[in-house]
Amino acid sequence: MLDIDKLSLNIPDTTKPRVVIIGGGFGGINLAQKLKCRDFQVVMLDRQNYHGFWPLLYQVATAGLEPDSIAEPLRKMFGSDEFEDFHFRLVKVIGVNPIAKTVSTLVGDLPYDYLVIATGTKTNYFGNEQVKKNAFPLKQIPHALNLRSQLLQCFEQASMTADPQLRQSLLNFVIVGGGPTGVETAGALAEMRKHILPTDYPGVDFNKMNIYLVEGMDRVLPPMSPEASAKTLKYLQELGINVKLGVVVESYDGYVATLKGGEQIQTQTLVWAAGVQGALIDGLPAEAIERGRILVNPYNQVIGFDNIFAIGDIAMMKTEKWPKGHPGVAQPAIQQGKLLAKNLKRLKNNEKLEPFEYFDKGSLAIIGRNRAVADLPKDIHLGGFFAWVTWLFVHIMYLIGFRNKLVVLSNWVYKFFTYENGTRLIIRPFVRKGDRAKRKFINKYDME
Amino acid sequence: MLDIDKLSLNIPDTTKPRVVIIGGGFGGINLAQKLKCRDFQVVMLDRQNYHGFWPLLYQVATAGLEPDSIAEPLRKMFGSDEFEDFHFRLVKVIGVNPIAKTVSTLVGDLPYDYLVIATGTKTNYFGNEQVKKNAFPLKQIPHALNLRSQLLQCFEQASMTADPQLRQSLLNFVIVGGGPTGVETAGALAEMRKHILPTDYPGVDFNKMNIYLVEGMDRVLPPMSPEASAKTLKYLQELGINVKLGVVVESYDGYVATLKGGEQIQTQTLVWAAGVQGALIDGLPAEAIERGRILVNPYNQVIGFDNIFAIGDIAMMKTEKWPKGHPGVAQPAIQQGKLLAKNLKRLKNNEKLEPFEYFDKGSLAIIGRNRAVADLPKDIHLGGFFAWVTWLFVHIMYLIGFRNKLVVLSNWVYKFFTYENGTRLIIRPFVRKGDRAKRKFINKYDME
Repeated sequence: MLDIDKLSLNIPDTTKPRVVIIGGGFGGINLAQKLKCRDFQVVMLDRQNYHGFWPLLYQVATAGLEPDSIAEPLRKMFGSDEFEDFHFRLVKVIGVNPIAKTVSTLVGDLPYDYLVIATGTKTNYFGNEQVKKNAFPLKQIPHALNLRSQLLQCFEQASMTADPQLRQSLLNFVIVGGGPTGVETAGALAEMRKHILPTDYPGVDFNKMNIYLVEGMDRVLPPMSPEASAKTLKYLQELGINVKLGVVVESYDGYVATLKGGEQIQTQTLVWAAGVQGALIDGLPAEAIERGRILVNPYNQVIGFDNIFAIGDIAMMKTEKWPKGHPGVAQPAIQQGKLLAKNLKRLKNNEKLEPFEYFDKGSLAIIGRNRAVADLPKDIHLGGFFAWVTWLFVHIMYLIGFRNKLVVLSNWVYKFFTYENGTRLIIRPFVRKGDRAKRKFINKYDME
Repeated sequence: MLDIDKLSLNIPDTTKPRVVIIGGGFGGINLAQKLKCRDFQVVMLDRQNYHGFWPLLYQVATAGLEPDSIAEPLRKMFGSDEFEDFHFRLVKVIGVNPIAKTVSTLVGDLPYDYLVIATGTKTNYFGNEQVKKNAFPLKQIPHALNLRSQLLQCFEQASMTADPQLRQSLLNFVIVGGGPTGVETAGALAEMRKHILPTDYPGVDFNKMNIYLVEGMDRVLPPMSPEASAKTLKYLQELGINVKLGVVVESYDGYVATLKGGEQIQTQTLVWAAGVQGALIDGLPAEAIERGRILVNPYNQVIGFDNIFAIGDIAMMKTEKWPKGHPGVAQPAIQQGKLLAKNLKRLKNNEKLEPFEYFDKGSLAIIGRNRAVADLPKDIHLGGFFAWVTWLFVHIMYLIGFRNKLVVLSNWVYKFFTYENGTRLIIRPFVRKGDRAKRKFINKYDME
């Protein structure tokens, strides 16, 4: 019997100072990799046993890659002898007690000397419970697999109906949010429509498949340069994507999306990539939180504490150049993680800390098969095929793990020459919670 | 709204005779590939949208391969122009009406001229509902993913307890069934224990991990030669697997397995690979069924019908050499599928049918990293590394799809030189139905 009372964090005692890192994202892993474990005992807590390379998550959703291509087991990353006093625990963190200097988890508390909050973000539904219930988020691998199943099920069902209204609702796809996730998902879906789906589903007329990209601001990729936005819009429209700018989705009941202004789109699939919010944990004082992120000083110390740090997306470090904090992409997390490793050593030796300075390496987004946009330092803006190649190499370079790089690269080369996605598998059919009619229908794999 | 009443099979009318194939396994795909669609309209019905290469399923369970390496989308296989009158439908078949000459599905009936039942097998629990509820079967990709999550969760939890009894129940693994699935799963698990787990889980003492292989007969791999069985037993024991022959599991409540004779093993993970039964469909007369399989004549015609066929595992063709029917492996299904394609053409042209003769290419099983056994024609029995290389090439040769072969091969080469499995990811944590305590504890991915 798995008795929860008999589980504990079971971390060995140590004479070294203990650094507890919550989260194995870009911030957490870069910190742990630089820290090694010579001067500290390092404990990493996460609810997943892997590090995910989220910029490629849309590829899992659109049947381009399997999860192992974008995820690396955390224990594998820290399994070598360099990390002998590193301890990973797969457990959910409930809160922090800054006075007792402990973190609370589902299986008990753990004292820390230094605590690093690197929990990243989660989907922001802006309080719309109906959307939360019915839309497809795209932040985690199970989300991507659910969306993949849903897309393929829609095409299968579209081939099995003569009812024009039902078929149209199966072939309408609404993607909410014109950031990189929304743009890249829409682009990949448009490529599928062009190259894959007509062969796979000869009985379905894909001229009737509509891809809507709905963005509340007046341009796509709002964090990028206006040049990049304009190019991206052009690319999206060339791919036949119906881009709606300055429009928000007000409600979605699983079947009909109602846009502000009253327009309605019948769709069984609404992807919600409209925003994120910090994945906060309980126990920090209200003064340390602003708009869902944790306020930190230039050393990533949480306001009011010298031994609690926040790095990456969850941290808000206001600077002159970034008055609202750094952008929510991988680079600030990576750079803050690396710097914090140095600063923790300095702190331990009572040396002066080094303030964080963000080195902006630029932004990239990919739209379909061989089009991308890039804002590089020194005001260089790239588009088209050259930006696509840049995108490819930057992403593969940062992919963790030798094997993943090879798999992803060979997949891409293969796709590029064959227009062929490999993984159009419905492993676990998706059924919306409470959708009894669909559950009854669905071809659930026989669990015998 | 997805209204089931508005779904239908939606198969175009045709003047050609219609062949309905139930099942996209080895039999179904080989039949469809040979038939092409010149002389017939071909309709394939399956509850999965992919063909699975089941001999490698244990690799998915033991974190060696991702599902896309062993599965190929059926629509992709039949997407070329050669198959222009081929129609796949992802739907569950309910039954057959031989008098009306129709198959019934969840979305309506379909008339056939020729019906081919190629539904294969499902797990046989021999009526033990308790085992069915608590054990891990290994027949489908979701089964393998569940088992993979379970194995990894057991190791994670073993690292989080100081309670010796709980830890032992997490580190005991019982595999029931000494056929290829059981042997290969046990072997892969033993290799993980040797090469991967001690590095991944430095806090766990893997000398305490026990792998039991329980087989009711007096030897492992009973369908193979006594030489192969003896070699396999030796290999298993060299890998430190506790093989129990002539023993059956009488009960398993999810925590304690009770063997015949009274011995009890505390284990949270019991893999049930002890037997299969035909995946029958309703509507055939009782005379056509024997021990869960469909009786067929040498032309694979179901006894009593000239336009209903059964091929592969579900078919029982009694011959002098195989009085209990052919072995339940891929080759009879492949060969029967190919021959039936020819015979359907002959039948259409009123030509004489060709009786089936099984060409036994031999049997193979792999035990761990570089040991295998092979029974080849002409009474040749191989063992060790040479059999392992044979196993490797035979399996890769038969893997469907160019891309899969490359992925699987590169995975193997990588694993062979690095002792490294790639996909130790808990994507969807496994919780046994009704296990509330565990569900509460489990680190369910945050669906936000």
